[in-house]
Amino acid sequence: MSLRDTAEAILKGNTVMLARAITLCESQKPLDRKNAEKLLTQLLPHTGRSLRVGITGSPGVGKSTFIDVLGKHLTGMKKKIAVLAIDPSSEKTKGSILGDKTRMEELSRDELAFIRPSATGRSLGGVAEKTREAILLCEAAGFDIILIETVGVGQSETAVRNMVDFFLLLQLAGAGDELQGIKKGIMEMADAVVITKADGENEKRARLAQVEFQQALHLFQTSDSGWAPKVLTASSTERKGIAEVWKLVEEFFSVANSRGFLEKNRELQNLRWFHESVEQQFRDKILRTKKGADKIQRFEKKIKAVKIIPSVAAAEVVQSLLPRR
Amino acid sequence: MSLRDTAEAILKGNTVMLARAITLCESQKPLDRKNAEKLLTQLLPHTGRSLRVGITGSPGVGKSTFIDVLGKHLTGMKKKIAVLAIDPSSEKTKGSILGDKTRMEELSRDELAFIRPSATGRSLGGVAEKTREAILLCEAAGFDIILIETVGVGQSETAVRNMVDFFLLLQLAGAGDELQGIKKGIMEMADAVVITKADGENEKRARLAQVEFQQALHLFQTSDSGWAPKVLTASSTERKGIAEVWKLVEEFFSVANSRGFLEKNRELQNLRWFHESVEQQFRDKILRTKKGADKIQRFEKKIKAVKIIPSVAAAEVVQSLLPRR
Repeated sequence: MSLRDTAEAILKGNTVMLARAITLCESQKPLDRKNAEKLLTQLLPHTGRSLRVGITGSPGVGKSTFIDVLGKHLTGMKKKIAVLAIDPSSEKTKGSILGDKTRMEELSRDELAFIRPSATGRSLGGVAEKTREAILLCEAAGFDIILIETVGVGQSETAVRNMVDFFLLLQLAGAGDELQGIKKGIMEMADAVVITKADGENEKRARLAQVEFQQALHLFQTSDSGWAPKVLTASSTERKGIAEVWKLVEEFFSVANSRGFLEKNRELQNLRWFHESVEQQFRDKILRTKKGADKIQRFEKKIKAVKIIPSVAAAEVVQSLLPRR
Repeated sequence: MSLRDTAEAILKGNTVMLARAITLCESQKPLDRKNAEKLLTQLLPHTGRSLRVGITGSPGVGKSTFIDVLGKHLTGMKKKIAVLAIDPSSEKTKGSILGDKTRMEELSRDELAFIRPSATGRSLGGVAEKTREAILLCEAAGFDIILIETVGVGQSETAVRNMVDFFLLLQLAGAGDELQGIKKGIMEMADAVVITKADGENEKRARLAQVEFQQALHLFQTSDSGWAPKVLTASSTERKGIAEVWKLVEEFFSVANSRGFLEKNRELQNLRWFHESVEQQFRDKILRTKKGADKIQRFEKKIKAVKIIPSVAAAEVVQSLLPRR
């Protein structure tokens, strides 16, 4: 099948071709990369039209169940939704737990839904780039909403934040009187916090957590989007609060659009992607060579032993790896 | 004066030589850089012995006055203190408002204090590196405590956070019922928050702010240092709460030291400095050339016009700027 045919199939919503195209983008082989770039470039005019929503939360908070129920709510409104994932540990484990169709039972059987596990890769930057390209492909295939989920590991939330319009944090109320600690840096990224498992005996704790988080969020400056983050409670098992979450997301898009924020934000995100990609590719081409990696390792040892100033070490590395001109 | 003589003078605490050495490190001339690296390397074994404390807060919060009073408190205990600054706007304005001796009147006349304005530079990364080197020089000169102040602009707080042991956020209580919004991302970096200007009619509001911030900080996970951030109030004009702030800082160092956290943290900071420096120098040598800057600019235009995929643009930039091998 030619690239042109593949592109046309994707534009018609063919999810088999979509999946293959995503796989092509994930490939590190030079010829695959050439073709991937051609395909992406052909489809570029048809991208940008979805709502991009990121979802994060610690393991055990109930992400998969939440996405399953939220997804069904959306397809019930006849929306086509794609569920992608960034699992920074995926290069180490065989198969990520995110985007695992067995954990999103109902949604995985839904015609209007497309679920894709995380790309694997040598670095978070590499994985994040593949996800960004997958977003574009899904948009070309006509998906209205793209959910990107991640776990709270390393910098994966920051990566997701930089590729979505709206960032949702799922949080547990916690056991007893203690609120489950929120990972530093995440709360201020969130456009909304949803306290999950707000059912049965846990409902009271959930409402308490809601008040505490709302008070904390109130302390932050309003962001450029003009949007003040909200805190909701929800129960996936009882299907409560899910519609309210989505109403809130829609409210955000209404506010953000009216201020021209979304377009501006996406432009900034694209520029950031560009600069991060340039650095990533330089790093791959220069520092990830055997020679480069050895040098880096040797200097790291000297730095740990306080035998060399980091900036001096950096100068020596750059000097030796950049060809004379 | 030979480099060896300069090094010996610095080790004896000669602040005139110290100031010259910092200026030498800030110079971008290749010969100055060579000498700076030699000097830093000679002094390296004598570094690392200070307490490094970062101080940030919005303009108007009273940073200079606070540092003036805190500084006098410390010199009163016979401690030698250096006050450095990172002002990211310093390359644009003639002279930074930070580290301005006229705003730290008492301290600037104190024999035990050394105040230095921010380095200027083309980028925050460049300015931050010069400050890191200045820290090392100050330590070699025998300073017990190094305060690094910055304003809440851009990523300057993150830069300071990555070069200090303890990070202090100064915050205003705010007018009326509103708490002054805290910049996103800063609160979770802070090891302590000090509500300033807790005097006169403002004292009640300050105490209210203290409670609200303490509740918010309580929501975060404890950090690896084992330290839970605290919130205090202080009044520089009435010299109230200043001793308590320093007691808290000492408490932190006690906790952090006992867990071996400080050493580990500094090692991580040095490794981070190394990697950031490598990237910075690559960027300077490859992307800041006329050819590189033009290319970047041209591609940024195409990206804004949604005429090219950012990763594809990045590949073209890297391809054209990295020589064939």
